[in-house]
Amino acid sequence: MKMKVPIGVSVRHAHLTKEHMEILFGVGYKLERFRELYQPVQYATEYTVDLVGPKHELKNVRVLGPENGFSQVEISKTDAFYLGVDPPVRASGDIAGSASIKLIGPQGEVVLQEGCIIANRHIHLHTSEAEKYNIKATDLVDIKLGTIKPTILRGVSVKIKDTYQMELHIDTDDANAALVKTGEYAELITINEWEIVEID
Amino acid sequence: MKMKVPIGVSVRHAHLTKEHMEILFGVGYKLERFRELYQPVQYATEYTVDLVGPKHELKNVRVLGPENGFSQVEISKTDAFYLGVDPPVRASGDIAGSASIKLIGPQGEVVLQEGCIIANRHIHLHTSEAEKYNIKATDLVDIKLGTIKPTILRGVSVKIKDTYQMELHIDTDDANAALVKTGEYAELITINEWEIVEID
Repeated sequence: MKMKVPIGVSVRHAHLTKEHMEILFGVGYKLERFRELYQPVQYATEYTVDLVGPKHELKNVRVLGPENGFSQVEISKTDAFYLGVDPPVRASGDIAGSASIKLIGPQGEVVLQEGCIIANRHIHLHTSEAEKYNIKATDLVDIKLGTIKPTILRGVSVKIKDTYQMELHIDTDDANAALVKTGEYAELITINEWEIVEID
Repeated sequence: MKMKVPIGVSVRHAHLTKEHMEILFGVGYKLERFRELYQPVQYATEYTVDLVGPKHELKNVRVLGPENGFSQVEISKTDAFYLGVDPPVRASGDIAGSASIKLIGPQGEVVLQEGCIIANRHIHLHTSEAEKYNIKATDLVDIKLGTIKPTILRGVSVKIKDTYQMELHIDTDDANAALVKTGEYAELITINEWEIVEID
């Protein structure tokens, strides 16, 4: 039996503080669950913002709920080239010194001095799943995905909580490179470093 | 010693017949070498076309020279989603039954009934390099690329000719997923299928 992991493709999106929500959408805004996400705590809202970079802008970028302790914008490298920004690859929440980005909403604008990142590839696991498969939060795992363009993602980080469900989170660049979509399955594998033969 | 392969990232581009060049740019068009490419036969020209799909259009897509026996447009999956087309992954030249796309130039328009593809990942090798490394044109090879987002491309095809120089051709989705650029290096590796351990 293979260890199959459901794929969740993260399209560019924003997590916003209450303060930024009020500037962008007005003080009367109400976050409602527009669409449930596979991870139960977060959800897609009806709100969108426009991202403005030095080169171009990307319109109608989804705001996720609930309100966050800090504002964070997650985009792909393709988005970054288009906008003209240079965000680092980071785990969600690790935004110190990350890229600046401007957000425009119907009621106002916000310039984030930092908070724009390319989210790192990661797997969500429920605590019981992590125990079952003997995976620790400090592990890096390898993931096999795609059939027409078979691809292995190495060193994928793991997030374990008892509110999580097993899911691989990758961005649209990874998904489009391997030709996979949300709801399809990847496979957790291990490759021993010494079993990769370097060719002279 | 590792077998390093220079990376060449193919941004969306078009190869056009003389007939289509004349419709798009007028009968007096002259293909000139605007920028040399690493593979000596092809070159970037000063001409660009706009690609028009059912959803959006992509402007200023580079035309490569010289004129081709058939017209072919190579885009990424990200481009395909944006345009609203569904091209197959194909080797260059294998366009039978591939996607339709409309091209607009300053002098006219062309609708290709087929010819729009996502180019497969491939390596160009000079005949002598292929002999040296004992690689045949029917081989599929594995490629390790990227450091921040380490990625292995499996089953990459090989093109061998005595006019080629060693180069890995990947599209912008693959490049952006692994955070690599033209001029950087990938590594040719081999992974034995049985050395990938599937986890129960």
